[in-house]
Amino acid sequence: MTYCVAMRLSSGLVFASDSRTNAGVDHISTFRKLHVFHQDGDRTLVLQTAGNLATTQSIISLLRHRSRNADCPNLLNASSLYDAASLVGETVREVIQRDSEAQQNGSTTDFSCNLLLGGQINGDEMGLFHIYPQGNFIEATRDTPYFQIGESKYGKPIIDRVLHYDMSLEQAMQCALISLDSTLRSNLSVGLPLDVMIYPCDSFSDARQYRITEDHPYFSTIRKGWGEGLVNTFRQLPPLVL
Amino acid sequence: MTYCVAMRLSSGLVFASDSRTNAGVDHISTFRKLHVFHQDGDRTLVLQTAGNLATTQSIISLLRHRSRNADCPNLLNASSLYDAASLVGETVREVIQRDSEAQQNGSTTDFSCNLLLGGQINGDEMGLFHIYPQGNFIEATRDTPYFQIGESKYGKPIIDRVLHYDMSLEQAMQCALISLDSTLRSNLSVGLPLDVMIYPCDSFSDARQYRITEDHPYFSTIRKGWGEGLVNTFRQLPPLVL
Repeated sequence: MTYCVAMRLSSGLVFASDSRTNAGVDHISTFRKLHVFHQDGDRTLVLQTAGNLATTQSIISLLRHRSRNADCPNLLNASSLYDAASLVGETVREVIQRDSEAQQNGSTTDFSCNLLLGGQINGDEMGLFHIYPQGNFIEATRDTPYFQIGESKYGKPIIDRVLHYDMSLEQAMQCALISLDSTLRSNLSVGLPLDVMIYPCDSFSDARQYRITEDHPYFSTIRKGWGEGLVNTFRQLPPLVL
Repeated sequence: MTYCVAMRLSSGLVFASDSRTNAGVDHISTFRKLHVFHQDGDRTLVLQTAGNLATTQSIISLLRHRSRNADCPNLLNASSLYDAASLVGETVREVIQRDSEAQQNGSTTDFSCNLLLGGQINGDEMGLFHIYPQGNFIEATRDTPYFQIGESKYGKPIIDRVLHYDMSLEQAMQCALISLDSTLRSNLSVGLPLDVMIYPCDSFSDARQYRITEDHPYFSTIRKGWGEGLVNTFRQLPPLVL
């Protein structure tokens, strides 16, 4: 399983992904699910992936490979984020169709995947897209400033309660980390380390990328602080009257 | 959809259910999902239901109808809670098999359901069972003192953080109400009113049953208090350091 969340706020973008993949409970591995396509001062594109690992790895590999060939449309020469999302959607269709067609008769393997694409290309607005297994996509707005893929439910209530479009990127990252913590606690198939990134609007920089491991001091502090805060809030509720 | 939670603690049992059913987003109704079989001083059995409404209504109707016939095994003459759970499991199998066999060719209707059965029969220990669509069941223990059926994920993190086997029944009900509130906020197919019940161990009483509507003063108070408490806890987290 996987849990990725991305937020598109007035001042920038926030991304957070876990890194656990599993094929059954006895085949657990760590794979990065946050991928950056960057050209300093020109563009910063961030892709997060959930779903069939063979599919998502192929998609990322093809996108990387093609971005080295300036003669074909690719993520490093797309002129808008919308075009970049279309390109990713086409690649999603290409890989899923290729692998599904080659499938042996009667097999019902699920080759599907979901991706988040966020970032900014110079001359275009910042944006965030959710790209579906069908290759089509939706864009985050002020009304719905975040998307989740993978195991999204455990970590959704806290985002719905605290996230605002005009929140600072640092607060939004705190919210993302707490959302991930709730998911890590409730679903064994979502696991550390986390890959997180902050993209300030118009920065065209990929500098603020971080990997958060089990012993990361700040993550440990807010996990503890949040857990204790919840218990204290619970204890302070007025006595039951039914 | 549905969300029901039941807790088996040292001092008794706590039950909470929503009441929304839907067949598509434009066909929403209210049906009670918490059903009590009771004989004063002898037994109190509580059934909560999730899944296909035709299936769960049939199961409850058959169990009620048969409990009026003292000559056949039924919920009012079962000698142990384990026997009662077996009886419910058999009824689940009976209804699902009947409706599945009558299904028209090619139809793929899901007739399945999940039930929680909690309570106590005089001479036997208090207990709580989760009965699966297959008719088999598991029992709650000190290690895992609660079960959920239906849309369980949004409301699980808070239970995992605060519920303890030795908690008071009043605190456990507060925890159940907050768990339901988180679910109500995140999933439109779970809705008010709520049906809740507290069963104190060895009471053999069904007196503490309550219906919680939109304007219930205490529920409104803790929904607000919990929401504000979460936001305050969030605001008090130390500044982000990555």
